[in-house]
Amino acid sequence: MSRDFLADFARMSTFGATAGGGVDRQAATDADGQVRAWFGELLAAHGFTVEQDAVGNLFGRYAFTEGAPYVLFGSHLDSQPLAGKYDGAYGVLAAAHAAIRVIEAHRAAGTAPAYNIAVVDWFNEEGCRFKPSMMGSGVVTGKLPLETALATTDPRGVTVAEALDRLGARGDGLLPEIAAYGEIHIEQGPSMQEAGVTIGAVAETWCAFKYEVVVHGEQGHTGSMRMADRRDALLGAAHVITAVNDLIGHFPEETLHTTVSELYLEPNSPVTIAREVRMLIDLRAESTDELERAYALLRERIAEIEERTRTRVEFVSDSVWRSAPFTEAGVRLVEQAAADLGLTHARVKTLAGHDATNVKDLVPTVLVFIPSIDGISHNEREFSTDADMLAGLDVFTRVVAGLADGALDEAADGAGS
Amino acid sequence: MSRDFLADFARMSTFGATAGGGVDRQAATDADGQVRAWFGELLAAHGFTVEQDAVGNLFGRYAFTEGAPYVLFGSHLDSQPLAGKYDGAYGVLAAAHAAIRVIEAHRAAGTAPAYNIAVVDWFNEEGCRFKPSMMGSGVVTGKLPLETALATTDPRGVTVAEALDRLGARGDGLLPEIAAYGEIHIEQGPSMQEAGVTIGAVAETWCAFKYEVVVHGEQGHTGSMRMADRRDALLGAAHVITAVNDLIGHFPEETLHTTVSELYLEPNSPVTIAREVRMLIDLRAESTDELERAYALLRERIAEIEERTRTRVEFVSDSVWRSAPFTEAGVRLVEQAAADLGLTHARVKTLAGHDATNVKDLVPTVLVFIPSIDGISHNEREFSTDADMLAGLDVFTRVVAGLADGALDEAADGAGS
Repeated sequence: MSRDFLADFARMSTFGATAGGGVDRQAATDADGQVRAWFGELLAAHGFTVEQDAVGNLFGRYAFTEGAPYVLFGSHLDSQPLAGKYDGAYGVLAAAHAAIRVIEAHRAAGTAPAYNIAVVDWFNEEGCRFKPSMMGSGVVTGKLPLETALATTDPRGVTVAEALDRLGARGDGLLPEIAAYGEIHIEQGPSMQEAGVTIGAVAETWCAFKYEVVVHGEQGHTGSMRMADRRDALLGAAHVITAVNDLIGHFPEETLHTTVSELYLEPNSPVTIAREVRMLIDLRAESTDELERAYALLRERIAEIEERTRTRVEFVSDSVWRSAPFTEAGVRLVEQAAADLGLTHARVKTLAGHDATNVKDLVPTVLVFIPSIDGISHNEREFSTDADMLAGLDVFTRVVAGLADGALDEAADGAGS
Repeated sequence: MSRDFLADFARMSTFGATAGGGVDRQAATDADGQVRAWFGELLAAHGFTVEQDAVGNLFGRYAFTEGAPYVLFGSHLDSQPLAGKYDGAYGVLAAAHAAIRVIEAHRAAGTAPAYNIAVVDWFNEEGCRFKPSMMGSGVVTGKLPLETALATTDPRGVTVAEALDRLGARGDGLLPEIAAYGEIHIEQGPSMQEAGVTIGAVAETWCAFKYEVVVHGEQGHTGSMRMADRRDALLGAAHVITAVNDLIGHFPEETLHTTVSELYLEPNSPVTIAREVRMLIDLRAESTDELERAYALLRERIAEIEERTRTRVEFVSDSVWRSAPFTEAGVRLVEQAAADLGLTHARVKTLAGHDATNVKDLVPTVLVFIPSIDGISHNEREFSTDADMLAGLDVFTRVVAGLADGALDEAADGAGS
């Protein structure tokens, strides 16, 4: 008998639960360790062999046929601070439940699919405590060296390796070779709810350009230093933040998303003008052309800001995600599953990054969305309805069954190109 | 024989010394503890009875006449982060050396002044680790309850009481009743250097209005949340910071100083729009009229910013220092001392707050400035010349002698009014 999904979802949401109805389960914190332990037991109870790899990815393998390759399904159990309980976690639990349903169906029928099935909780998708985001899937897909990931520190100087070891979450398991990957996630935007669509077949990602910048100024006394002599790094940063926001005026409405959300200043003291501000600029749009134009506009504005505030703005690093389509066969698989189940569906784009964004460069990948009410996410008020979660689970069960039967085999030749 | 002031100054500057030639001696840190221990020994070696009071003020008493009232001299040994070695520390050491010179002169002559002499290192003048600033003198002058000061926490949650106890810096001493107070300090602005003046007789303080504000927004996903739906607290804060700076355009040049130098945002995470920014607005001018006009203009601008960014800006606390003149007799004493020594001098205003600003509301107070090269302060490049430090010491020795002889007795009746 299949497990009750909603009961498991409620239980899962108690780990790191916040007063505001959300969760705070930043990567490798106690709450993350607790939900991982619970999830590992859930998989083990259904016959999965549960392991952890060197960067803390937690996964369970179910082998119908020893030596056969795998298809993989999952998402992430970690969260942003004071976040919602759906982001990532819904997808991990739906992956497990869908896999269990498919396994039970095969066992009842005495059949075996072409591929074995594995389920994963990717370590540190959120990237809030430890940067960059999508760390676990980044290491597995070769985008981030393992040593770099393990040596990354949180704001208190704790390394990923230390934080994982404290939880006993660093293992010697190795994710099996996989032929395809599937993930289900909340949309985190309002478009599906507004269009009245229950199932989104993600066909493309938005592009994201992220820049870490340092504004260099000079310390001084806030009372006695003359205004004309100041090189106030926080004032320079404030002008950059408003300039980043003003970029949207150069583009059609809602086609460019821009944010500065992380910022550290030194010395951050009441009577001392800031000497340095470090912050992250986040630009997203449908195409890299738009982002390149936005970036060029921003550099022009920043040159003016540097002159006006007598500060220097240094671009110290960038990370660029270009747009790339998802496998067409996977998109069709989702559309067909939704149609068969009588659910409304549409092709959508993802504006947020997901582990699927990493994995799809390696193997054919399917990404399914369910609606986020009012598009609210990274917020305790994040919400998706039980009905949508269950509809998503039904669709995703068909995706798991399809991928295990080799539905994306023909697409595999073209993947990674 | 008098101690070598410059040798002592060099030794003192080794405690908390930074690579950039400054010091980092935030209140009740190890470096602060070390310089306090050294300074206490210096006083004890010259016959002072050294004690600490309940809020960590470190002071030495020298009694010519048991039971006679005291005059007090001092400043602070703590510093801002990555700060200069002159701010505060010069004044503490000059007070000790001047007092020792006066004591030795009386002992050599077999005379006793009207008042006994005490020297103080006020605890936590800077207010960077623990707010508010001028904490030690604030408690002694009754402006800040002792319990409030002791319960204040630093950003890691350590209380003043805990930090002091760790250093053994909380004592049961009580500063004696005092008849007058004197302090010497670096100017921290460029006006004296530019005017070619060695000795500043501080006649008045600038006014300061400080406001702690919280910008309230809402968390959201930086990638997927529509721009039109956002309530980005950091964007609201950036507009407030530029508005605070823009205020100076409404006033004659350099008559208004405005700064935001301390800022905390939540959750401060790369992919999540900030829900809250807490920051400190610092406005200074010669008169409260100007500050009241600046504040009214700022509130108008903030109302526009709230509407434009869909955030709410809450003023949670303020601290207001109104302008007040220093005792005229004290100003004349400094002028006379400088003239007698053949030093250039002028009446100046202080734009920065000092412990003297607290104490002068209680007893007649003298404040002397020496030049800051290029007006740089709260910066490792803060600099005053040896010649100016020694000239200041000579003037301050006459101030100590004069106050001990009762030079401000006539002013005492009007103090505190």
